[in-house]
Amino acid sequence: MKWLKAAAEEIVENIKRSVQELNMKDVEKLIDLLLKAKDKKIFIVGMGRSGFVGRAFALRLMNLGFNVYFLGETITPAAEKGDLLIAISGTGSTKMVLTASAAAKDICATVVAITSFPESQLGQTADLVVTVKGRTKEGSPREEDYLARQIIGEREPLTPLGSIFENNCMVFLDSLVVELMHRLGRTEADLKRRHATIE
Amino acid sequence: MKWLKAAAEEIVENIKRSVQELNMKDVEKLIDLLLKAKDKKIFIVGMGRSGFVGRAFALRLMNLGFNVYFLGETITPAAEKGDLLIAISGTGSTKMVLTASAAAKDICATVVAITSFPESQLGQTADLVVTVKGRTKEGSPREEDYLARQIIGEREPLTPLGSIFENNCMVFLDSLVVELMHRLGRTEADLKRRHATIE
Amino acid sequence: MKWLKAAAEEIVENIKRSVQELNMKDVEKLIDLLLKAKDKKIFIVGMGRSGFVGRAFALRLMNLGFNVYFLGETITPAAEKGDLLIAISGTGSTKMVLTASAAAKDICATVVAITSFPESQLGQTADLVVTVKGRTKEGSPREEDYLARQIIGEREPLTPLGSIFENNCMVFLDSLVVELMHRLGRTEADLKRRHATIE
Amino acid sequence: MKWLKAAAEEIVENIKRSVQELNMKDVEKLIDLLLKAKDKKIFIVGMGRSGFVGRAFALRLMNLGFNVYFLGETITPAAEKGDLLIAISGTGSTKMVLTASAAAKDICATVVAITSFPESQLGQTADLVVTVKGRTKEGSPREEDYLARQIIGEREPLTPLGSIFENNCMVFLDSLVVELMHRLGRTEADLKRRHATIE
Repeated sequence: MKWLKAAAEEIVENIKRSVQELNMKDVEKLIDLLLKAKDKKIFIVGMGRSGFVGRAFALRLMNLGFNVYFLGETITPAAEKGDLLIAISGTGSTKMVLTASAAAKDICATVVAITSFPESQLGQTADLVVTVKGRTKEGSPREEDYLARQIIGEREPLTPLGSIFENNCMVFLDSLVVELMHRLGRTEADLKRRHATIE
Repeated sequence: MKWLKAAAEEIVENIKRSVQELNMKDVEKLIDLLLKAKDKKIFIVGMGRSGFVGRAFALRLMNLGFNVYFLGETITPAAEKGDLLIAISGTGSTKMVLTASAAAKDICATVVAITSFPESQLGQTADLVVTVKGRTKEGSPREEDYLARQIIGEREPLTPLGSIFENNCMVFLDSLVVELMHRLGRTEADLKRRHATIE
Repeated sequence: MKWLKAAAEEIVENIKRSVQELNMKDVEKLIDLLLKAKDKKIFIVGMGRSGFVGRAFALRLMNLGFNVYFLGETITPAAEKGDLLIAISGTGSTKMVLTASAAAKDICATVVAITSFPESQLGQTADLVVTVKGRTKEGSPREEDYLARQIIGEREPLTPLGSIFENNCMVFLDSLVVELMHRLGRTEADLKRRHATIE
Repeated sequence: MKWLKAAAEEIVENIKRSVQELNMKDVEKLIDLLLKAKDKKIFIVGMGRSGFVGRAFALRLMNLGFNVYFLGETITPAAEKGDLLIAISGTGSTKMVLTASAAAKDICATVVAITSFPESQLGQTADLVVTVKGRTKEGSPREEDYLARQIIGEREPLTPLGSIFENNCMVFLDSLVVELMHRLGRTEADLKRRHATIE
């Protein structure tokens, strides 16, 4: 079981480092955008495993009372000026995420990129980039369009490195939810009470 | 309840006409492609309501023993040369469907378009177009990219006309399944037996 | 192509008959419940192909401005007293649909069953049953729990009969949307304008 | 940002502890079952955030060449004797997961539970339980049926503790994938080559 243990250690070390290396000024800006979006709509977009992490975050934002949607599911209303799109892509070059981000910019919605590559096309499109480190070794192949890879036959690497971004991102976003909870002045008991009565 | 009845009549009339107006040579080519794809992979793609019709078709192809996947769901293997992509889009201009189709062409997969507009970008990309009539009145707005509309705030029309393509398409594909079943020499009892033992 | 044509004819004949055989008093009650639910939450539940039809209906209700969710997707808030659950199951015995319906009853939400079998367990649980005919021949096997069938290895029949309920249901619900649109006094232009500005 | 940092630390500490507390004999049995299932079907089931973690695992198993499906998605074939169901539920009492597990047992499929509560109903049903620790403090409320909670209005807690199981589970399963990769004698380059040619 040495590989399992080594992989878990590597994942944990990467999570710790990625949290330490977060630019807290950017995270503060993201929190500001989220708190100001309480009466706006928030959209989350991501493909593949980044999409699963995005859905887990969306579910928590809904728990906190935000008006949030995951792009591509049945009930996704149209966005409008002032809404917020949170685009999750390790490489910042996933084509469907880029398409959604460009469309959001066209209608003057605010785009936040969560990516390892701030200089990527997604990073350049976004109004705010929160950099979450992924692969830290050289020679990391750039992730390409998810749908295209499904068609073309390429896949992300299967070593621990390949899963680093998603794990880092999941812990970052779950921790962000706790910060938001406290900023909103809510205790777990408050939230439970709130859930039992108004939802 | 006059509107409900009138709408149902209009939908039914459109279904009947759309079946009559099918180009059976093209349908025959589609059947050939499907039967030859028994040991290949078949991918279905479509957005919004066209996507739900596509999923219903995919489920039936699976029942018939085909190796079929709906693009965007978790378990979607990479495609390769010789595989088949069935792209469903009323207008033939849904961006995500175009992206998938272009990627499929790049790897020499075969693309079949099911659309009301054979001259659309999707129609021009595809190796085979099966035209399923949708709106038959003039001035029908071209459907645009689904994701973009979600972001931008436009939506498909809500009158009966807006649902014509999806209903026509669902009846066409369900009828195609029956034709395939008979071509494959299977009775309902055969299929049930097969399902009870090997699936 | 005789099988395709025969199947399409059979599907169309069944759609026409199922609309004629609708109990319009029950449909009127459903419309009342929907119109009264404008400031409540509406949940749709269905498995397999019934689920795809349910999602297509949910999308249209959202277009009309309803507060609607499809059970099982990421963003599904908790239900409360007075909310509406629309449960779609041809046989009325799909276990997951029954589970959701029982839970809805427990919290005094209103349950509407759309089924071919009003005397089924779902029909007996529901506050309102709208009967949509499916298979009309004798000996139709009762559909069983979808998940269980996935595990156990049984599947719905593949002949046209097997798809009858879903097609009937899709045309009924699309026509109901048109009726609702007119009851709400909305034209297609109104709705488009509304979508461009408030969504 | 103190809450974010504290939450991240707590999550990381819990991940580390949960990996240390894994019963490696049980993990070895799970690996055996997976390796023996190479020519069988593997089904993953989980609701809500556990479901997103399950999908991320399913995607990786597919990358490794396993014949794997996520229950509830369109293309999910029927299971049969000898197939493997991996059921993920922190509390081991999620009703839909229990339903699927019971159905799997009925047809003599093998059920593996991944849960924090080996003595739960899921744990008692399963042929093998891999315990992944979640909340370690006293008084942890038992998670209940996900669908029921959606209807009834209860939700999982929002404090860091509420997300502990999912994070622990994601790191465990991603590490397990690396172990499997090495057991199967595959390098990242092998896998890439394999993906480029046979998928």
